[in-house]
Amino acid sequence: MNNFYYSIPTKILFGKGQIENLGQTVKQYGKRVLLIYGGGSIKKIGLYNKVMQQLADNGVEVVELSGVEPNPRITTVNKGAQVCKEEGVDVVLAVGGGSTLDCAKVVAAAANYEGDAWDLVKDASKVKKVLPIITVLTLAATGSEMDAYAVISNMETNEKLGTGHEEMKPKVSILDPEYTYSVSKYQTAAGTADIMSHVFEEYFERSEGAFLQNRMAEAILKTCIKYGKIAVESPEDYEARANLMWASSLALNGLMHYGKAGSWSVHPMEHELSAFYDITHGVGLAILTPHWMKYVLDETSVDKFVEYGVNVWDIDKNQDKYVIAKQAIQKTREYFLSLEIPMSLREVGIEEEKLEVMARQATRFGDIKGYKTLSAEAVLEIFKAAY
Amino acid sequence: MNNFYYSIPTKILFGKGQIENLGQTVKQYGKRVLLIYGGGSIKKIGLYNKVMQQLADNGVEVVELSGVEPNPRITTVNKGAQVCKEEGVDVVLAVGGGSTLDCAKVVAAAANYEGDAWDLVKDASKVKKVLPIITVLTLAATGSEMDAYAVISNMETNEKLGTGHEEMKPKVSILDPEYTYSVSKYQTAAGTADIMSHVFEEYFERSEGAFLQNRMAEAILKTCIKYGKIAVESPEDYEARANLMWASSLALNGLMHYGKAGSWSVHPMEHELSAFYDITHGVGLAILTPHWMKYVLDETSVDKFVEYGVNVWDIDKNQDKYVIAKQAIQKTREYFLSLEIPMSLREVGIEEEKLEVMARQATRFGDIKGYKTLSAEAVLEIFKAAY
Repeated sequence: MNNFYYSIPTKILFGKGQIENLGQTVKQYGKRVLLIYGGGSIKKIGLYNKVMQQLADNGVEVVELSGVEPNPRITTVNKGAQVCKEEGVDVVLAVGGGSTLDCAKVVAAAANYEGDAWDLVKDASKVKKVLPIITVLTLAATGSEMDAYAVISNMETNEKLGTGHEEMKPKVSILDPEYTYSVSKYQTAAGTADIMSHVFEEYFERSEGAFLQNRMAEAILKTCIKYGKIAVESPEDYEARANLMWASSLALNGLMHYGKAGSWSVHPMEHELSAFYDITHGVGLAILTPHWMKYVLDETSVDKFVEYGVNVWDIDKNQDKYVIAKQAIQKTREYFLSLEIPMSLREVGIEEEKLEVMARQATRFGDIKGYKTLSAEAVLEIFKAAY
Repeated sequence: MNNFYYSIPTKILFGKGQIENLGQTVKQYGKRVLLIYGGGSIKKIGLYNKVMQQLADNGVEVVELSGVEPNPRITTVNKGAQVCKEEGVDVVLAVGGGSTLDCAKVVAAAANYEGDAWDLVKDASKVKKVLPIITVLTLAATGSEMDAYAVISNMETNEKLGTGHEEMKPKVSILDPEYTYSVSKYQTAAGTADIMSHVFEEYFERSEGAFLQNRMAEAILKTCIKYGKIAVESPEDYEARANLMWASSLALNGLMHYGKAGSWSVHPMEHELSAFYDITHGVGLAILTPHWMKYVLDETSVDKFVEYGVNVWDIDKNQDKYVIAKQAIQKTREYFLSLEIPMSLREVGIEEEKLEVMARQATRFGDIKGYKTLSAEAVLEIFKAAY
């Protein structure tokens, strides 16, 4: 097990009706809030009104930034930072899914930065003072509610980059599974795939001795497999929504990572797909994952795939190890298919002639140092297999 | 899944050599420290000198409280609080196992309380300002390094009571598995049983829908089962010590509890054994656990035992459910035996004629509202079976 520094300071208010604590919570951190949200779905489900009521009841003044994109753009971040400066905002409240939360994090950092917020995305060490961030989550997927990270797109440069800073961890996140009832089947499936991919990126890794972390990773994977399907079929199943929501937070708050080295592979590849085509991140991950698994399966990784197959998919362990490994990969693919995720890059509108430029772009800073090192050629091979 | 409020603010420095960060860490919280430790084993392993060096190098002044008992006593706590007041201590540093940490927590709370510290043990709501607490852990067992709780004994009244307060959570804990190399086989076995019991107390519980928490609980149990044995046999196996150490923290920092109601049964029974006889807590838990399991096994609990047996012990699921449940209980008992834990109350020196008074004492505030409600008669029946 590797050495680690554990710090998960975000407080969580989890469950039905926790929105009743929002006003008091925000008031502890400031009196002039920038409320950030996306395309208006929070109005449709009545959450916007509840939020405004809570803030008004607690004497918190509100300015708004709406229209955050599914892949949040740096132009929107800069707009939010500008509002913070002009309006003397002292706390940022994000209400929505991971995109809205990611946008809010960089807004909160950029509010105290003179210059283009894209600088902070490219170089997190430039982040200094960050406004306190509170979130109300409406989609179980990215884990942004409990971590330091944000992914921001720059459509001018076709770049989609991650950034992160300890100070960007939300102070408090409200997780009410009922606010995810209205999430579409498609987005529920994509969110489930996103959570699973976060776990895969830590699980398939070469460090030795992190047994506990591996068993916990399997706990989250089994939870996703069970409840992703239920939530897609019965969107108002509280138990399913609650398990997925808590899984999304634990998958990426550090618990899966502490003690391991991390070796992210599929996310860096997928980021190029959604940078170029604005496709749903979780869908891109689901499409690529089984093909990436096939690509990395070899004598050095087969035992890990056996562990995965036996512990997560309950595959009979008394078989040849490659048989088990391939069954595990097949089951992963079939599972995503059962969630009705389109399982090829062609189906989500990606053009074959763009694969090469995206593969080059994914490795523009060098090979992807993942579970198995991936060159541009390797990425292209995976993209082609997934086409 | 039940609603919950998650707050785990303790930062962890985990792994070899983390002691190098102690001085800087303490300095962030104060400049005059009360160093609390037990019977001097920290001197034997060279840790005391390293701690003193770190504090000196960082200009931190030290006063000491040594001789904390294995079941820490309120007299010692009061002595520590007195020293804090007289010496103007502004930060408490506990170096040792759970007993030392527990003692330090109540010392840190009592330093700002006028009166007998026993008041704070009996009524945690009296805890107000608590001195910042830093810990260096030398025994994987109680989880005290990352939680709000402390158990203190009063030998005058034959009472052993738990107390807890959010402010009593350590600010930072240093967890270096190498400092547990010198823990005896007996204490390693007892510590493993303690960790497992913490998980059992949350796992065997009636709330519905906490699937993720249950799978994580199994992850910790499997970790204990694998590495408890290895650590007993090979005390300097880093991987085993590391997995047990991290398991001890995650078993009791709240992760297993959030979303569930909790239904502690074996701890309240065991506390009477060690209050009367000063036996090793984990040993008492190991002795009682299988008998408690047998006692609570019925039509309402059998499915839970099947879950436990199949998921943790890999018992063939294609059997009668009571067969699986009984095998699971038997395997639990055999496991503790394999760690060379004496598995009867008689063997640890408890007198049969005291069972009744201890059973009455365990239920003096009413029946134990555990997984199954336990009256004084029920507790006595379990004690007798375990004798």
